[in-house]
Amino acid sequence: MDEKGKEQFAEIKRLSSEAGNFTVSLHFDRRLYKQDIAGSIAHARMLSKQEIISPEEGKKIIKGLKDIQCEIENDEFPWNSELEDIHMNIENRLREKIGSVAGKLHTARSRNDQVGLDLRMYIKEAVGICLSKIRNLQVALVEQADQNQTLIMPGYTHLQKAQPVLYSHHMMAYFEMFDRDVERFEQVYRRVDVMPLGSGALAGSPYPVDREYVASQLGFASITNNSMDAISDRDFVLDYLSAASICVMHISRLAEELILWTTDEFGVVRLSDIFTTGSSMMPQKRNPDFAEIARAKTGRIYGNLMGLLTVMKALPMTYNRDLQEDKESFFDTHDTIVTVLDVFARMIDGMEPDGTRMRASSEDGMLLATDIADYLVRKAIPFREAYSIVSRLSEYAYERSKRFDQLSIDEFTRFSDTFEQDVFEITVESSVAERNVYGGTSPGRVRDAITDAKRKLDLDV
Amino acid sequence: MDEKGKEQFAEIKRLSSEAGNFTVSLHFDRRLYKQDIAGSIAHARMLSKQEIISPEEGKKIIKGLKDIQCEIENDEFPWNSELEDIHMNIENRLREKIGSVAGKLHTARSRNDQVGLDLRMYIKEAVGICLSKIRNLQVALVEQADQNQTLIMPGYTHLQKAQPVLYSHHMMAYFEMFDRDVERFEQVYRRVDVMPLGSGALAGSPYPVDREYVASQLGFASITNNSMDAISDRDFVLDYLSAASICVMHISRLAEELILWTTDEFGVVRLSDIFTTGSSMMPQKRNPDFAEIARAKTGRIYGNLMGLLTVMKALPMTYNRDLQEDKESFFDTHDTIVTVLDVFARMIDGMEPDGTRMRASSEDGMLLATDIADYLVRKAIPFREAYSIVSRLSEYAYERSKRFDQLSIDEFTRFSDTFEQDVFEITVESSVAERNVYGGTSPGRVRDAITDAKRKLDLDV
Amino acid sequence: MDEKGKEQFAEIKRLSSEAGNFTVSLHFDRRLYKQDIAGSIAHARMLSKQEIISPEEGKKIIKGLKDIQCEIENDEFPWNSELEDIHMNIENRLREKIGSVAGKLHTARSRNDQVGLDLRMYIKEAVGICLSKIRNLQVALVEQADQNQTLIMPGYTHLQKAQPVLYSHHMMAYFEMFDRDVERFEQVYRRVDVMPLGSGALAGSPYPVDREYVASQLGFASITNNSMDAISDRDFVLDYLSAASICVMHISRLAEELILWTTDEFGVVRLSDIFTTGSSMMPQKRNPDFAEIARAKTGRIYGNLMGLLTVMKALPMTYNRDLQEDKESFFDTHDTIVTVLDVFARMIDGMEPDGTRMRASSEDGMLLATDIADYLVRKAIPFREAYSIVSRLSEYAYERSKRFDQLSIDEFTRFSDTFEQDVFEITVESSVAERNVYGGTSPGRVRDAITDAKRKLDLDV
Amino acid sequence: MDEKGKEQFAEIKRLSSEAGNFTVSLHFDRRLYKQDIAGSIAHARMLSKQEIISPEEGKKIIKGLKDIQCEIENDEFPWNSELEDIHMNIENRLREKIGSVAGKLHTARSRNDQVGLDLRMYIKEAVGICLSKIRNLQVALVEQADQNQTLIMPGYTHLQKAQPVLYSHHMMAYFEMFDRDVERFEQVYRRVDVMPLGSGALAGSPYPVDREYVASQLGFASITNNSMDAISDRDFVLDYLSAASICVMHISRLAEELILWTTDEFGVVRLSDIFTTGSSMMPQKRNPDFAEIARAKTGRIYGNLMGLLTVMKALPMTYNRDLQEDKESFFDTHDTIVTVLDVFARMIDGMEPDGTRMRASSEDGMLLATDIADYLVRKAIPFREAYSIVSRLSEYAYERSKRFDQLSIDEFTRFSDTFEQDVFEITVESSVAERNVYGGTSPGRVRDAITDAKRKLDLDV
Repeated sequence: MDEKGKEQFAEIKRLSSEAGNFTVSLHFDRRLYKQDIAGSIAHARMLSKQEIISPEEGKKIIKGLKDIQCEIENDEFPWNSELEDIHMNIENRLREKIGSVAGKLHTARSRNDQVGLDLRMYIKEAVGICLSKIRNLQVALVEQADQNQTLIMPGYTHLQKAQPVLYSHHMMAYFEMFDRDVERFEQVYRRVDVMPLGSGALAGSPYPVDREYVASQLGFASITNNSMDAISDRDFVLDYLSAASICVMHISRLAEELILWTTDEFGVVRLSDIFTTGSSMMPQKRNPDFAEIARAKTGRIYGNLMGLLTVMKALPMTYNRDLQEDKESFFDTHDTIVTVLDVFARMIDGMEPDGTRMRASSEDGMLLATDIADYLVRKAIPFREAYSIVSRLSEYAYERSKRFDQLSIDEFTRFSDTFEQDVFEITVESSVAERNVYGGTSPGRVRDAITDAKRKLDLDV
Repeated sequence: MDEKGKEQFAEIKRLSSEAGNFTVSLHFDRRLYKQDIAGSIAHARMLSKQEIISPEEGKKIIKGLKDIQCEIENDEFPWNSELEDIHMNIENRLREKIGSVAGKLHTARSRNDQVGLDLRMYIKEAVGICLSKIRNLQVALVEQADQNQTLIMPGYTHLQKAQPVLYSHHMMAYFEMFDRDVERFEQVYRRVDVMPLGSGALAGSPYPVDREYVASQLGFASITNNSMDAISDRDFVLDYLSAASICVMHISRLAEELILWTTDEFGVVRLSDIFTTGSSMMPQKRNPDFAEIARAKTGRIYGNLMGLLTVMKALPMTYNRDLQEDKESFFDTHDTIVTVLDVFARMIDGMEPDGTRMRASSEDGMLLATDIADYLVRKAIPFREAYSIVSRLSEYAYERSKRFDQLSIDEFTRFSDTFEQDVFEITVESSVAERNVYGGTSPGRVRDAITDAKRKLDLDV
Repeated sequence: MDEKGKEQFAEIKRLSSEAGNFTVSLHFDRRLYKQDIAGSIAHARMLSKQEIISPEEGKKIIKGLKDIQCEIENDEFPWNSELEDIHMNIENRLREKIGSVAGKLHTARSRNDQVGLDLRMYIKEAVGICLSKIRNLQVALVEQADQNQTLIMPGYTHLQKAQPVLYSHHMMAYFEMFDRDVERFEQVYRRVDVMPLGSGALAGSPYPVDREYVASQLGFASITNNSMDAISDRDFVLDYLSAASICVMHISRLAEELILWTTDEFGVVRLSDIFTTGSSMMPQKRNPDFAEIARAKTGRIYGNLMGLLTVMKALPMTYNRDLQEDKESFFDTHDTIVTVLDVFARMIDGMEPDGTRMRASSEDGMLLATDIADYLVRKAIPFREAYSIVSRLSEYAYERSKRFDQLSIDEFTRFSDTFEQDVFEITVESSVAERNVYGGTSPGRVRDAITDAKRKLDLDV
Repeated sequence: MDEKGKEQFAEIKRLSSEAGNFTVSLHFDRRLYKQDIAGSIAHARMLSKQEIISPEEGKKIIKGLKDIQCEIENDEFPWNSELEDIHMNIENRLREKIGSVAGKLHTARSRNDQVGLDLRMYIKEAVGICLSKIRNLQVALVEQADQNQTLIMPGYTHLQKAQPVLYSHHMMAYFEMFDRDVERFEQVYRRVDVMPLGSGALAGSPYPVDREYVASQLGFASITNNSMDAISDRDFVLDYLSAASICVMHISRLAEELILWTTDEFGVVRLSDIFTTGSSMMPQKRNPDFAEIARAKTGRIYGNLMGLLTVMKALPMTYNRDLQEDKESFFDTHDTIVTVLDVFARMIDGMEPDGTRMRASSEDGMLLATDIADYLVRKAIPFREAYSIVSRLSEYAYERSKRFDQLSIDEFTRFSDTFEQDVFEITVESSVAERNVYGGTSPGRVRDAITDAKRKLDLDV
């Protein structure tokens, strides 16, 4: 080879290796090592049971795989990114350890069904973790409600003060949101819990494999029905990402409220110092950074969902390398949602409501207008007429900067002679107590809701 | 008022009315009229049962509401966009019809819980329609598979020919995808099927309402647990949009394949003329416009999902007017997914596979390489070694532009002396037949899958 | 045909017509009528100039097209959705009016380049409208700033009070945001302003057309360079949607602040009654519905952007029917952004800041901490040390619920003996005045910024 | 402290440190080290010039910063994630190196304007890299076109063969797409190229800083106009992400075509072995993995755009910690787009078109229908009539599986007696040659387009 030839050759090699990185997934898919090994062990066991390989071969392979797991967990594994992914790293290492019999492990299996299996196993575990983290946050919310059952604060619509509610009722609203997340993740779990091995590259295995046996070894509830679908299906990742998107949206709403509530203007809760930071220039600041970052994580998870939906759009059957892009968005989403849930469980746990300020804030703003209208309705005024009377009354009071309890009975009767002295019995307490309907904010109803929630969470009642 | 004053006043009025349009939702929420009236009737019945209003009042209100429904359905209703939404239009009309007693209907109810109720009722019905449309498409797929059970076509990975599969197996892969959509929409249904009325504006109703009674009147499975959550919850719309996004993604994959299969180059199916169009300049064209438009609808539905996720991000409790933006994205998604499913059911129904071309296409491209490797494995060569032998063999054949069956036994044995005459028994038929594993492409397995699917769809087996 | 045959035939016809609706675009693309006609007139004129058609044919066609425009504008046009789109409707009508010579109009033109032309012409106009609407909003912001130049309010970071700023400075921050939108839309304009006609169906026209002539007739700055690209390009729609997404994001930020500022807790501005609404149950409420809806529109526009990005992903050359989905997302975005900008221009115009409350709010919260640190720095304490001193001082004051000006000089010197009597000269006014840097909040700088802005907007200075 | 107290304390410390990680950005923002140091040096130089610090202090600080840069680049820097971000790491290290004078560097500067500066500097560089990568890809496209100027292939609409085009024309269509990306990134550059330092935390600096001097030191074209806007503005990141989204969409379209063209069915190009991979089970496969992964990256970048748009939605002024989420989505997008562009430049460079197969593919499929219609038009048949004649002719030929050139003149005249012997002069060559309009596919026009492109790219013409 002449000089120019050598240069060209070197250049091609360099380019090839650089370009090669583009297809390397080892840096993220090594997280699947445990699943990959467990899957391979179950597969080897089945091959041996079905006499596709001999019992000795089976034992050798399983022993080798277990050794590799040890190596990885002891940080002694010789990772090699030239082998591109976790599967080839393990397979190659197995050959180094047990020789050519290692080659038999891939009998009746393809990278395509193997990848599907590993990812499903990982996501099953991931869903379990999510569920426990959501439960932790729910515990914190219920305890926050429980410990502050009777605090009254303004309830808002349009961020305008509307009616008094119990702070505990407000906390329990979030309990409900996250309870739907639990339901959603449980459904995701059921959809992930289907075993794809045996689908081969796309058409099914030509060996006498026992798919049910592998499924039961690995704790799967069922097996996939169609090999081509099994290879190309990433619905279960999208299901996870959809559930996580709605869950982080709930987090963002709670985050928004914490940010509002800790402003100087609202000032109704205090976050633990752990979850606020100072400013480099404004020493007096206590910034709710954790809540803000969590709110921003919404974008990240939405983006991951949109990303994978885009990847999947219009992909023909069966495996396309595009599918490699499923993992990073999933891992990133999983890490994010778990951390965010964790932070929030602890942040809610250490949050201190300022009952005095809540109470004071409930008393201005004419939050009792609806109650006064309802008072008239109970005295036989049709609702819409009552509404109209109180509307004029409110305007009158507002212009004089008076609360309703600062008006005289004469002022009341100027708007309707149905008003009597007992109108002054309407207070924020009576308002809250009146809403004694299932799901309402009356102290009894909220106490019951807390009890129900505790039972659901296996807490002492 | 002087001239200038008058002008200013007119201007303000004009501006005000223009700006007013911004908050009008009547043009889309009038689709909820049936739900709104049914919800109001159930509410009135309950108010009467609970003696919150008198039986006579109840009857008058219900009669009035039924009359209004007739008016709407006979196109005689005096729509008034100044009343902004469907709820006020109906309420106002009721007053015109039955006088001030109409005002009692709104007792113990707020626009906030009313809107939630109407939307939930509508979506319950919408989910039912989706489910039946998906079922129709599944029927078309199963019948397409059934009528063409034994056609062999190339199976692809990376859009490269990989292994022969049955066309019917390919169709059944889509059956599976859509079956998960059924499961998903059924889960959405369960989450929508919760009755919010009685939550009031946000804090619960102060009247002795019977929420369970309303729920049972309207066919809801349960009632909401927390009034604040009930008012601010739009998870059920997001659930619907998520399910629709995954469903249309499946459609887009099928669309992509139809577009590929109807090219001159692939040419393995023919769509009915109904679903193709010509060109204004190129008279010979038969363009798969319906498949293309359906593929594009993916963007629309993804966009609607992303839109509502964005709306919900960081919204504080409880009702914010932002929530008004939930309806159009839902309606648009619903209309789109229903139409797309409809079009596809019919398009698949009329699709004609070209068995000859499929078969021919299966025979070039060396689709039997895996089978030959498996042949060696069964003769005790470890998989990875067999793989390597066939890899070299393939290259040899490729360079000579020969198919495997055009090689001599001598050429085979040049790569491994394990090859014997029986290697020529490997054919596309034997390849397909060998994949006789649950979920595999062998004729027997596919027949069973079709039978199972027909049972699921209540079709004659 | 027997009975069953007839039924089947009717069914097929019905299905075909229903399915047909799927491809109909007339209900939205009729908005392009003016552009379509103007484009056709320019095309006809060019055909005649180039002697591809005779002058008489040209005149007849042009006359016919103008008549059609009148018909449409007088609501006398016989719209026919069976002809699917605006182009066929006009072409067909032209034939009805002038006979077979109408068929010559389509010479040297294809639906593909025609659609591209119409959409580009429409978007050019749309961008112009956007620009004028943004300018109106900027005018309102500048005038709001101008009329309230010296009001002091708290500036926030992390929604925590940080440093005093001028309200006018805050308003001018939004002026800057929208100025970038102007720049962005102007760049969009330049990218739309390229004339595609002459690209034919995909390969260019085989007739001796004069593309530059058509461009100049229609006011385009240049012509497209490659026919295949021209047919398949929808970058200009994405450019519009991207610009609109960022613009509505700015709106959402302003909306968020208006919603905050009009809460009972902040209470620093009052919106005109036109832009708030009451509540059906809580007569005292003044809900900032317009700001809320505008905030929610962000989702809609983001969704439209994401939708079209999804549509365009992985589309092969050149025209695919998927491209039909470009129009609705564009129209919806355009209508939305224009209305939102309009509403905000008027809402800002009528907004009344409450200077008293702003001022009061600036005085608690220890907003002067940075100024006190800077005071120390000017007395030669390194910044980080000064920071640390003031940090401790703030904590001391905070615990005693005192503002800095309520501390004694002794209390100050307890933290650093650099403090002298002149520390009491630090006030919110001095704080604002000190920030006398280009872009800073000092009254002089803000006055200059307002003047510059007015010049930019051609307002009297 | 008793045992339980100790445990609780340890627990709190652990929680606090774990939670702390949530706010750590060092692992990604350390990429900004060069920008952070350069920005600090310019700031220090300005402080010294303005006599805010002494010349000696300035020198000491600058020397220290340069040393730190060396440490980082020699991998000797003691990274400390407890200091959370790159800025504190450097500032802290500076103190270790030069003592308390380090504290003066932060005079007249805040983390808020510093972060903005660093990110803008980084993005300016990033845009430069993108531009050069796009240019490389354009060079590859132009050379591919240049070297294969006269190859004829089928042009497609709806993925159906439509008209013959030059392969070089097809390549040049992509050149045009990427040229718009160049324009777009250049506009992004101009919007990034504005210097924010001096904005302080939000209100501007109270020191006599010289912002123009800092800008000119750092090579910025201008300075920001409003401090509050400057702190809260992330438009420039969104601009980058929008440009990258459209650019990767273009890549995905090219990727889709490469995937199609390398199928067995199309088979018109061959990718270099570097850019294809084999299969673990199907040795004959040559999978276009690089093109597939690139196609999938579209999802990733779209997701990043959607993510940041979501983050920015409804953020109040000025700095919110949410903004920290701007960096990872930007870095990930930048790394992705740069790699993808790189891979494609090399993949296109090594791509080999199969002229024989292209030519053959152009000859079936009746691609000359339009030309035959145009032939009639030139013989004075109105276009629509000509269209209708050729439509019937095509159907006739299609049913007999004949190409047009296999019909006799008698068969032609059966459809119109305008046909004469010269109809057989219509060939794929003549068809291409006829499209001799600016932007058309005739060899001369494409040659000119290549020449223009080469000039633009500074290549030898």
